[in-house]
Amino acid sequence: MQDITAGQFQIVYNAFSFTIAVMGAATVFFLFNRSQVAPVYRAAITLTGLVTLIACYHYFRIFSSWEAAYTLMNGKVVPTGVAFNDGYRYVDWLLTVPLLLVELIFVMRLSRAETVAKSVRLGLLAALMVILGYPGEISTNTGTRWIWWALAMIPFLFIVYDLFVGLKKSIASQPEAVRGMVSTARWITIVSWFFYPVVFIFPMIGFTGGGATTAVQVGYTISDIVAKAMFGVFIYLIAVRKSEAEVQLRGTEGQSLAPAGAD
Amino acid sequence: MQDITAGQFQIVYNAFSFTIAVMGAATVFFLFNRSQVAPVYRAAITLTGLVTLIACYHYFRIFSSWEAAYTLMNGKVVPTGVAFNDGYRYVDWLLTVPLLLVELIFVMRLSRAETVAKSVRLGLLAALMVILGYPGEISTNTGTRWIWWALAMIPFLFIVYDLFVGLKKSIASQPEAVRGMVSTARWITIVSWFFYPVVFIFPMIGFTGGGATTAVQVGYTISDIVAKAMFGVFIYLIAVRKSEAEVQLRGTEGQSLAPAGAD
Repeated sequence: MQDITAGQFQIVYNAFSFTIAVMGAATVFFLFNRSQVAPVYRAAITLTGLVTLIACYHYFRIFSSWEAAYTLMNGKVVPTGVAFNDGYRYVDWLLTVPLLLVELIFVMRLSRAETVAKSVRLGLLAALMVILGYPGEISTNTGTRWIWWALAMIPFLFIVYDLFVGLKKSIASQPEAVRGMVSTARWITIVSWFFYPVVFIFPMIGFTGGGATTAVQVGYTISDIVAKAMFGVFIYLIAVRKSEAEVQLRGTEGQSLAPAGAD
Repeated sequence: MQDITAGQFQIVYNAFSFTIAVMGAATVFFLFNRSQVAPVYRAAITLTGLVTLIACYHYFRIFSSWEAAYTLMNGKVVPTGVAFNDGYRYVDWLLTVPLLLVELIFVMRLSRAETVAKSVRLGLLAALMVILGYPGEISTNTGTRWIWWALAMIPFLFIVYDLFVGLKKSIASQPEAVRGMVSTARWITIVSWFFYPVVFIFPMIGFTGGGATTAVQVGYTISDIVAKAMFGVFIYLIAVRKSEAEVQLRGTEGQSLAPAGAD
């Protein structure tokens, strides 16, 4: 592990604890408020709660791993020799990133065929992306890191393209009241996702030492909060608005609220 | 860390444990009793439960940090050299203070536009206030503490003014049955909030040593119990009364209970 100052250790430590609180509170919020949306959107909200629950668990582990990696000796924070386990982030992402994408697809309430096709395609691409990133993350060799980074960027760019172009078309089919919010959720995904490959390359562009370790850990943490909890709140608000819009529609036009296959 | 007596250590230790119990019980109360209020007020009660849940988590961490900061040696309590982490309070407040304000706004059931505008303004001011307080809290220099204290007081006074003047107007629009309680909730907020900047300045006005450490920790703890759990009980009672009043109104005047956008 890198040498870091007591202040840097503390920033990362507090950022991890903060994230445990955010993810835990978000999980309770989503699971308890699931009943506030129409049945057809409940599967999306359940997934949103699962994403933050899984992240909450992993941040507990990440927090403990960080504590175990350093110790106080003569008033200084020094590495213990036990490596901080980056694996927790990757197993977290392996589960949560496909779920996040499926959650966005579900809340859009596309046709059953489109829902299944998009969920399978984006879910598998997301898993592939995370798997390809891991060998690079645990390597200290800059060349090796670049190779795996480039390989992981292939599914990454496919997903972003799909969100950017594929979902853009679907936005036009959304009720007018939520079109802006769906578009914002799409942008949150795209922008927060771009943080990850950027944070990944910090050590490869000469940004090393305690400052870099701190920036990488805090960077991934902020990205996770935005991509999981904040994004989840948007998914929830979209589901609430769509539920309201559809109740009104049903009142005036007798339209059915039968599930579309999302749940 | 300051030298403290065994008695002082014990008072703080017991105060922290008491707070874990209070916040945990309050969380279960709010989340389980959420169904007792009209759907339109459930978002406010959920937020109330999230605030006490987040506080419960942080008091677990605060308790452990306090335990780690001192040890028993030859029958005396002595500092271990591991600093007590004040960061937990600040990351807690960063999350809970904006949520507390939003919870008060939600239970008032203003128009959607007013709810969004007030929530965003007060939420951001509250976050800014907490962020500005932290550099002062971790500093041992009296001058530095005063500077950050003064900076944090700017958003603090804006919020208090908004609660005092802005919400006072809205109270007139509340059902008569709850007008007194909303006014009390507003006063609990204002009074309990004034404890924080007062506790903050204890070490700056010559009040130092073990007695000051004890007073600061117990002071913040009492403020947290009042501002989160007691305040939450008031929010809950207001929601119950308003739900009852509106059911009666609907019975006599056919008024709709359609959501106002707070949820």
